Amino acid sequence: MRTGGRFLAACRREPVDRPPVWIMRQAGRYLPEYRRTRSEAGSFLSLCRTPRLAAEVTLQPLRRFAFDAAIIFSDILLPLTSLGIDFAFSDDGGPRLREPLRGPTEWAGLRYHGPGDDTRKVQDAIASVRAALPTDTALLGFCGAPWTLASYLVEGGTSRDHAAAKAALFSHPEPAGKLLVALADAMAEYLLAQVEAGADAVQVFDSWAGALSPAAYTEFVVPATRRLLERLDEAQVPRILYVGGGSHLLPSLVPLPVEVVSVDWRTDLLAASVALPGRSVQGNLDPAFLLAPPDIVGEATRRMLAAAPAVGYIANLGHGIRPDTPVESVDAFLAAIQGGS
Amino acid sequence: MRTGGRFLAACRREPVDRPPVWIMRQAGRYLPEYRRTRSEAGSFLSLCRTPRLAAEVTLQPLRRFAFDAAIIFSDILLPLTSLGIDFAFSDDGGPRLREPLRGPTEWAGLRYHGPGDDTRKVQDAIASVRAALPTDTALLGFCGAPWTLASYLVEGGTSRDHAAAKAALFSHPEPAGKLLVALADAMAEYLLAQVEAGADAVQVFDSWAGALSPAAYTEFVVPATRRLLERLDEAQVPRILYVGGGSHLLPSLVPLPVEVVSVDWRTDLLAASVALPGRSVQGNLDPAFLLAPPDIVGEATRRMLAAAPAVGYIANLGHGIRPDTPVESVDAFLAAIQGGS
Repeated sequence: MRTGGRFLAACRREPVDRPPVWIMRQAGRYLPEYRRTRSEAGSFLSLCRTPRLAAEVTLQPLRRFAFDAAIIFSDILLPLTSLGIDFAFSDDGGPRLREPLRGPTEWAGLRYHGPGDDTRKVQDAIASVRAALPTDTALLGFCGAPWTLASYLVEGGTSRDHAAAKAALFSHPEPAGKLLVALADAMAEYLLAQVEAGADAVQVFDSWAGALSPAAYTEFVVPATRRLLERLDEAQVPRILYVGGGSHLLPSLVPLPVEVVSVDWRTDLLAASVALPGRSVQGNLDPAFLLAPPDIVGEATRRMLAAAPAVGYIANLGHGIRPDTPVESVDAFLAAIQGGS
Repeated sequence: MRTGGRFLAACRREPVDRPPVWIMRQAGRYLPEYRRTRSEAGSFLSLCRTPRLAAEVTLQPLRRFAFDAAIIFSDILLPLTSLGIDFAFSDDGGPRLREPLRGPTEWAGLRYHGPGDDTRKVQDAIASVRAALPTDTALLGFCGAPWTLASYLVEGGTSRDHAAAKAALFSHPEPAGKLLVALADAMAEYLLAQVEAGADAVQVFDSWAGALSPAAYTEFVVPATRRLLERLDEAQVPRILYVGGGSHLLPSLVPLPVEVVSVDWRTDLLAASVALPGRSVQGNLDPAFLLAPPDIVGEATRRMLAAAPAVGYIANLGHGIRPDTPVESVDAFLAAIQGGS
């Protein structure tokens, strides 16, 4: 099988022997080996910023499970250092900006400084993971989408309802549009650097897309996200857009140049495939299922597969795997997709 | 105009001179007079449990704004005392169960003790508000929907992703179904008591409906919610179901006996009206708009009205008004609906 195997084939809507599968946040706290390496690193940020350790945790889930893709271990906030933004992570993993950028005055101060240390380190980690992976396993680079990053900037951290971020967009549409474009341009550079280092595909995480109405998403988010994705044309790798909670946004996604749309359990997989002709879909099991016993996980996974399109489908969860997930649940999820007990 | 005025007329899909309007959580912390009464009460729970003060805060927004409906001031957790459940509210208003009911063992211990003090107090407050209101202003009673209440019971408080509650449903479908029915039956009694005391309509809040996939909502939530709503047949008052984040659930709502479906900004008002023939719709402005300047609030409200069906429409926000909302934003919202400056 050629490079990238069935994962890249499914991105291209080519026939595959079975759906490729990986799991968002598959290198994470549910794995004991991850927790050991994380502890060795001392902090979440050190883990992200030490290419040897980032590569190690990226590879860990691939040693344990027959995933069709790896995703480089990092965090969507890291490339924000290229815009002069400083942040910290609390012990529970939650990010916190040193100074939230509440409105146009703060936004105007953002300058792109070019790819910095964080970009070079992620490139090092990608090169070393790509060298270690079998050719039929794809390696994904990733970044945060402009709106999701803007929410972190305005709110200063993870928000429940993104009200401050939304109010900032609604109150200052023109400078907000410029902020989103600045984020798009910086993220395009970041993804191109990841492809240059060896990433076979890229995923753009718009985790908070679903907080917006279709009208607000179309007005504010689509133009910047499209700009980011178009900049990737030259890289010639599949582009995956994850739209968390975005079942109401499918029609708004039509103009976006992506090969794959990644959806959560609120979105019917076939409906997404029909609404987005020519695109593959990825998803979409509720990660809460993986807190249930293995037989329930298997049954739910089989129902997911039954609702998936026949071509152009990549099996995944609808959101990142939870830290309290038993490893046996991943076995059951994979067995339902790959066969076996 | 007859009792209940244009609010009840819109519930019945009768023609009205303009859309009726009220705001979820209109008696709340954004109002200085509410904060004074809340402070006089000493705590949020005392405020709920002192009929004179609960009636007072219910009426406060009606003195300031020309709303077409009042909603009795209370909290969805209060009637859980009729099931022997004990809880507290932290200073920021967040509820906390003394002992979360994590699974079937704890659920099996729930017993309905009949309407207790909390029901009688809400009835007293309703009677005194109804007596004080003009006849053309409707008074709404309310309760939490079985799934939203079950999430509080299992999670022990407000949850970001409801993963523990969902995992409990998925892992124990049969006892979970019984738990939801027990909650439905207790809430039906509670709403009937509110109608007996003078409520002209009732709203069932399924604030966390949107956390579930269409399949999980249909399997677990629809049967219990339907049972609750059917018990209200005898009361002959309009039934409103609020489905937070429920844009993907419209087809699942078809079998539910409701006169009005209340949706948030993710759901297109006309699409909801088409998907739910014969039902009125309520909503749906994003409360984040009310953190923007008045001209932006007015423009967004006019866009909402332009997207609403011509008959069977009640203007509202898509979620409760935020405590940090300027009062001027409510003026701008109402001016766009009612005319005036």
